[in-house]
Amino acid sequence: MTRDVLVSEIKKKSTYLCVGLDSDIDKIPAFLKSSEDPQFEFNRMIIDATVNHCVAYKINTAFYESLGSRGWETLQNTVSYIPSSHFTIADAKRGDIGNTSTQYAKAFFEIMDFDAVTVAPYMGEDSVKPFLEYEGKWTILLGLTSNPGSADFEMLQTNEGYLYQQVLKKSATWGNPENLMYVIGATRNEMVSDIRNSFPEHFFLVPGIGAQGGSLKEVSSKGMNKDCGLLVNASRAVIFASTDKDFAIAAKRASKEYHDEMKGFLDKFA
Amino acid sequence: MTRDVLVSEIKKKSTYLCVGLDSDIDKIPAFLKSSEDPQFEFNRMIIDATVNHCVAYKINTAFYESLGSRGWETLQNTVSYIPSSHFTIADAKRGDIGNTSTQYAKAFFEIMDFDAVTVAPYMGEDSVKPFLEYEGKWTILLGLTSNPGSADFEMLQTNEGYLYQQVLKKSATWGNPENLMYVIGATRNEMVSDIRNSFPEHFFLVPGIGAQGGSLKEVSSKGMNKDCGLLVNASRAVIFASTDKDFAIAAKRASKEYHDEMKGFLDKFA
Repeated sequence: MTRDVLVSEIKKKSTYLCVGLDSDIDKIPAFLKSSEDPQFEFNRMIIDATVNHCVAYKINTAFYESLGSRGWETLQNTVSYIPSSHFTIADAKRGDIGNTSTQYAKAFFEIMDFDAVTVAPYMGEDSVKPFLEYEGKWTILLGLTSNPGSADFEMLQTNEGYLYQQVLKKSATWGNPENLMYVIGATRNEMVSDIRNSFPEHFFLVPGIGAQGGSLKEVSSKGMNKDCGLLVNASRAVIFASTDKDFAIAAKRASKEYHDEMKGFLDKFA
Repeated sequence: MTRDVLVSEIKKKSTYLCVGLDSDIDKIPAFLKSSEDPQFEFNRMIIDATVNHCVAYKINTAFYESLGSRGWETLQNTVSYIPSSHFTIADAKRGDIGNTSTQYAKAFFEIMDFDAVTVAPYMGEDSVKPFLEYEGKWTILLGLTSNPGSADFEMLQTNEGYLYQQVLKKSATWGNPENLMYVIGATRNEMVSDIRNSFPEHFFLVPGIGAQGGSLKEVSSKGMNKDCGLLVNASRAVIFASTDKDFAIAAKRASKEYHDEMKGFLDKFA
């Protein structure tokens, strides 16, 4: 999906919600366990329930790998099920030497048809470039993440600002706002305005609202640009809004609440 | 596999070679293509050919993911095939917020029975800890990698030395030499002595000899400790020593050459 199409989908739907399919098999409602592929069945029902309230889905590969090759199949089936109107993200946090990153890019962009994959920056340029080389695909690089551990290295002082600032600055020369986004956590709102000032065009994928405690309003007011420029992710707060038989209804309701809020913020801040 | 057992296997076999199963389907000899699972067949023959010359196998997950769920099955079958006398590494470079890293740890330590998994440090403590919590298992954290891109961030000056030095120093407090190793590239030999001085006990997983140009002799003389303390990886130089019908014989020969060299270095430097 190109940047233009993504922006127009956001405007058309009045939402920048990304629903995170962290579909932990141990939290899936018991009544689904008898179906052939409970995890896929869960995802299918979540997607059907939330599709009108979000613009993107983020699939967290860990929750599929932890089921072995069967989980990997569920992952493939899930991304295939998502309608082409929605932006698809493999939240895989890959990154390795060049010839290896090329294989990861192939896995997520060719074998599966994801629009985007999250990539870890530690190993530098040749570990990121193979993802950027795919026409029409997106690399979402870890910038400033939402977890407590982001203080350990991302917030280290270097000779030119924090490490995450160097990551953003250097990597911005490897790609452009048409093929490169950044992960910027909503739990670090005090830095979001600065990051937006330095990178006015790039989309940010924002985790950390909901279960992790970040504020949607704050990150929207500080992070939005004229094209919206945000995909705000909610995982557990939507998909496990209920863990009972009514989980899909509860997910619809939770995603609609975000949608309603986002409509307002788009009018106000974009 | 515990540290004691690993050290005793190294001494018994007089080798610290790790064979990297970067089994790129496009480079596998043509005559194997008709078998049911060419990648597994290739791995099986490589393992049989090299088992007496190495002490570890490192499976690069990217080369399996790029074949989808079928590749993931091959990955599982390959690690199961490796004899328990050999240390097994999932070269997966994972790392995410705590509840997600827990799922990755489950994938590699429970669903598959790897001894170790490589982990990327960018997201900090809570992204690494879930791997360290597995009794009898190992986390191999990226320190200073062998690729050109290591200059971009790993070698950035922070307020206390290079970033990679901070990663080593901080993470050493999260684990210990019984459950934590570091990736230290052989292409950065000028730093290996210093790293060894600062971390006398930890094992280092050393990529970068062979195709990437690092010197086995240099990294062995600078990096070895009394327990050896090194696992030196060779991937392409062994498994693709020939890409013809004689590939297994060529792999055996290449691994035996490393083995012979390593015998000498163990006598000299350990």
